[in-house]
Amino acid sequence: MSKGQATKASILDEALHVASTVGFEALSIGQLADRTEMSKSGLFAHFRSKEQLQLQTLEHSRRLFVDTVLRPTLTAPRGETRVRALFDNWLVWENVLEGGCIFVTGASEYDDQPGPMRDALVRNQRDWLESIATVVRTAVSVGDFAEDTDPEQFAFEFNALTLAYHHASRLLDDERAGERARVTFDALVARHRA
Amino acid sequence: MSKGQATKASILDEALHVASTVGFEALSIGQLADRTEMSKSGLFAHFRSKEQLQLQTLEHSRRLFVDTVLRPTLTAPRGETRVRALFDNWLVWENVLEGGCIFVTGASEYDDQPGPMRDALVRNQRDWLESIATVVRTAVSVGDFAEDTDPEQFAFEFNALTLAYHHASRLLDDERAGERARVTFDALVARHRA
Repeated sequence: MSKGQATKASILDEALHVASTVGFEALSIGQLADRTEMSKSGLFAHFRSKEQLQLQTLEHSRRLFVDTVLRPTLTAPRGETRVRALFDNWLVWENVLEGGCIFVTGASEYDDQPGPMRDALVRNQRDWLESIATVVRTAVSVGDFAEDTDPEQFAFEFNALTLAYHHASRLLDDERAGERARVTFDALVARHRA
Repeated sequence: MSKGQATKASILDEALHVASTVGFEALSIGQLADRTEMSKSGLFAHFRSKEQLQLQTLEHSRRLFVDTVLRPTLTAPRGETRVRALFDNWLVWENVLEGGCIFVTGASEYDDQPGPMRDALVRNQRDWLESIATVVRTAVSVGDFAEDTDPEQFAFEFNALTLAYHHASRLLDDERAGERARVTFDALVARHRA
């Protein structure tokens, strides 16, 4: 990584922190300049516009998500074990950023606002649901899950429990959120076991 | 309702519309004055501050939620029928406001921001989870649901599927969101049936 790339990565780390707690709309070049003690013109050279800053912050979080959740999951044995690894790694992800899963925050901000940010969030979310469905299909193919498993339905329900966990732990400070999510996940797996 | 109350209610209807699509933080007395063609000083007399406007908009949506979801549910026969009515009425609610369930939007905006809005959202959310649990307890007491049903766990999972439905229908424009939510709900009910 060149010095320029390292600088940019550290700016994006800071941007990620801001976006996860107060949202992508709260990101601004001026505010980031203050937080990183860089000049506004220096930051402007990296990002050109608020929208570019938001889009690159989202892309930065996507890479972090791949490294935290998807890549480690693929090292687990195929089948139910890998489905369980996906859940465990998602729980790790939820606690990587101070404000929890940044995609949940982004979804609420942009679901009714057409534009490049919404498009990028939709792509990320579709990729995520497809990743879940793929891991589930593998569990069917090795015989762990029943033949009539609907991988997209499984992905919908997996996504549901992650949203509820985020909600219960972040908004309600519910200490039992993790336990509740695990009971939901175990029931989902049990329903699909061959 | 006096003329003053009617005026205030129509302002709050407009505020609800704004908050459901772009969020509570986007509410401002100036913007609402434009949308309702009232004077800023007139609106200021009603709400005094942006925070009061936000809090009263949230309270207005809570009343609408009670009228749309909770009251009609209590007219259904006790037991599984009433649990199903709660789900059906929640689906109605999700389509009452242009931006869908306003509490989902509010939760993402305030979950990491302490203050009166967060406190009010937490109260609303706890009341909602408790309402679900109460309807479930009734289903246990009339013998429709199993004795070992955990009403709080059921409420967590019910909330999960509503969040996923909101997400799939609003962000992903998924035409099958309703069907997916119903499959999830039916499996949840089936798991608890006596």
